[in-house]
Amino acid sequence: MTFAPPASSKFLGALKGAVYACPPIWLMRQAGRYLPEYRELRTRAPSFLDFCYTPKLAVEATLQPIRRFGFDAAILFSDILVIPDALGQDVGFETGEGPRLAPIETRADFEKLRTDLDFSKLSNVFETVERVRGALPGDTALIGFCGAPWTVASYMIAGRGTPDQAPARLFAYRQPEVFAALIQRLVEVSAEYLVRQLRAGAQAAQIFDSWSGVLPVAEFERWCLAPTRAIIERVRAQIPDARIIAFPRGAGTHLSRYAPIPGIAALGLDIPVDPRWAAANLPPTLALQGNLDPLALLAGGAGLDEAVDRILEAFAGRPHIFNLGHGILPPTPIEHVEQLLRRVRAAKQ
Amino acid sequence: MTFAPPASSKFLGALKGAVYACPPIWLMRQAGRYLPEYRELRTRAPSFLDFCYTPKLAVEATLQPIRRFGFDAAILFSDILVIPDALGQDVGFETGEGPRLAPIETRADFEKLRTDLDFSKLSNVFETVERVRGALPGDTALIGFCGAPWTVASYMIAGRGTPDQAPARLFAYRQPEVFAALIQRLVEVSAEYLVRQLRAGAQAAQIFDSWSGVLPVAEFERWCLAPTRAIIERVRAQIPDARIIAFPRGAGTHLSRYAPIPGIAALGLDIPVDPRWAAANLPPTLALQGNLDPLALLAGGAGLDEAVDRILEAFAGRPHIFNLGHGILPPTPIEHVEQLLRRVRAAKQ
Repeated sequence: MTFAPPASSKFLGALKGAVYACPPIWLMRQAGRYLPEYRELRTRAPSFLDFCYTPKLAVEATLQPIRRFGFDAAILFSDILVIPDALGQDVGFETGEGPRLAPIETRADFEKLRTDLDFSKLSNVFETVERVRGALPGDTALIGFCGAPWTVASYMIAGRGTPDQAPARLFAYRQPEVFAALIQRLVEVSAEYLVRQLRAGAQAAQIFDSWSGVLPVAEFERWCLAPTRAIIERVRAQIPDARIIAFPRGAGTHLSRYAPIPGIAALGLDIPVDPRWAAANLPPTLALQGNLDPLALLAGGAGLDEAVDRILEAFAGRPHIFNLGHGILPPTPIEHVEQLLRRVRAAKQ
Repeated sequence: MTFAPPASSKFLGALKGAVYACPPIWLMRQAGRYLPEYRELRTRAPSFLDFCYTPKLAVEATLQPIRRFGFDAAILFSDILVIPDALGQDVGFETGEGPRLAPIETRADFEKLRTDLDFSKLSNVFETVERVRGALPGDTALIGFCGAPWTVASYMIAGRGTPDQAPARLFAYRQPEVFAALIQRLVEVSAEYLVRQLRAGAQAAQIFDSWSGVLPVAEFERWCLAPTRAIIERVRAQIPDARIIAFPRGAGTHLSRYAPIPGIAALGLDIPVDPRWAAANLPPTLALQGNLDPLALLAGGAGLDEAVDRILEAFAGRPHIFNLGHGILPPTPIEHVEQLLRRVRAAKQ
């Protein structure tokens, strides 16, 4: 099964360096709980992972925000923790509580993991990608994704979300060899996972490093920057024109370290990044993606329009993909998303 | 009551721009739960605020780490939430749970606050400062402190600690006039509070902005940077040579915006700041304070020595105050603090 490249995807254009008066837009977590049609759909699978692994449901969840809002890109509906699940770790999601994993606390726990991915689970994800690509309009791009090794490892070790990833940071200080082996395992399987998504029809892939902002620089270099670079290298060894977006949340002054990675197509900016700093300090041909505060979207009103305008203005004249600086929040009113889209689409720079 | 300036405080020297082969050192939260003598002392007051407001206990807590380790500076034992308490907000601390305040949710809640500080409570803090200054060796400086308005307001509005300060961010979007009035109130009383601490014998003061890293740049400028600048201006209007350390945790690329504030004596750096970036991008005469990962101190071993060496090397040749990038953690072994002090004191640059 092959797919024609989309006729005129502004999203893919921006990844290649094109500048638009009115930039392409998609929103992190655009498929999800703020949509009433998603909340209804979600009731049709018993567990969240079952939902992710049921192509019929995951395809529908991926397409829902495209139908409603006509975003310029769809993002595969899935979760970064399918990787630990496909490595044999026990992964579950408690409603309202977030993920729960059997924590990796010792070398023996690590050695119980598979060395390769369980494709009997992940083939469902690739089927979802194929089906979504077939259903999308030609000008709507499809984005695949994975979690960055540091972020995925931080859940694998803590067994849950934590405010500062202290369990993984401490594990890395105390057992650096085991931790390095875990990160290397995640580099290998994440690259393979992205290659399969891209071959199934995803036209770009985003690497989410949600917790890259908690480490000292030496650990950041070793556990965030180098593994992301290694994944991109591995993917491009198999798919030379693969387009990868890095989203190192909290990277702050380290952001400029991502710009020179060969093959990086865009850099996602999180909430606190000053768009004017980014525009002035990151290469002018690199697409930047972001970075509206999801709480400004939730609050709406004149403040939302002003916040949108500040971002549009800062990125005028350079490749830019409009997005949030973090995922859209479940209580966000639909009307505020409509207001955002009107404002971005009215942009004349 | 007046105090002679200390004979040869390396800490105060660094604040004036002096460079030492072996830099002065203190640790955030150095008076606290990792010390067995503190845990014993803490049992002598029923509540945490009672403890802070009892000079005999607060003096002893402040002095304990000086006696044990001979740090170059003592920091007043207190809490940033004495300010909401002295403004009449109901403040308590639940053991193991952190602070609980009657949240400010409406303009009416804000209007119930006092317009000035209740000095019947805070006079205890100033007495503590006086007594500590009298008890300290001449070469050991005394640091006073307050929370920055944004950080204090985030607790006043949420009523507790939250992972991302969403309640205060949303309040600021939805009720900007009320929020601005709250920040202005906090600027006024915090400046007054610092002036009184400095007049009572504190030789420097640190402004803790623990949550400055969660805001978009426009909100960061309005709620973090401008209020900190305003406090420093107000303090210096009364005490022209006041030495203020700003610690905007999570400020990332915004850090360089603090450097030009008139009267800033040092900038505290949090864990993820690359010391080499800071040394290259911040004015060479500005003292930088930080920034060892408290988890590296907790973990100890050869990794601790290496982390200390990297920081010493990056800041060699410029005014530097060795510190952590965040507060010391309660399970930190005493031996690791001793190891850290040996390493820093053996520095020959």
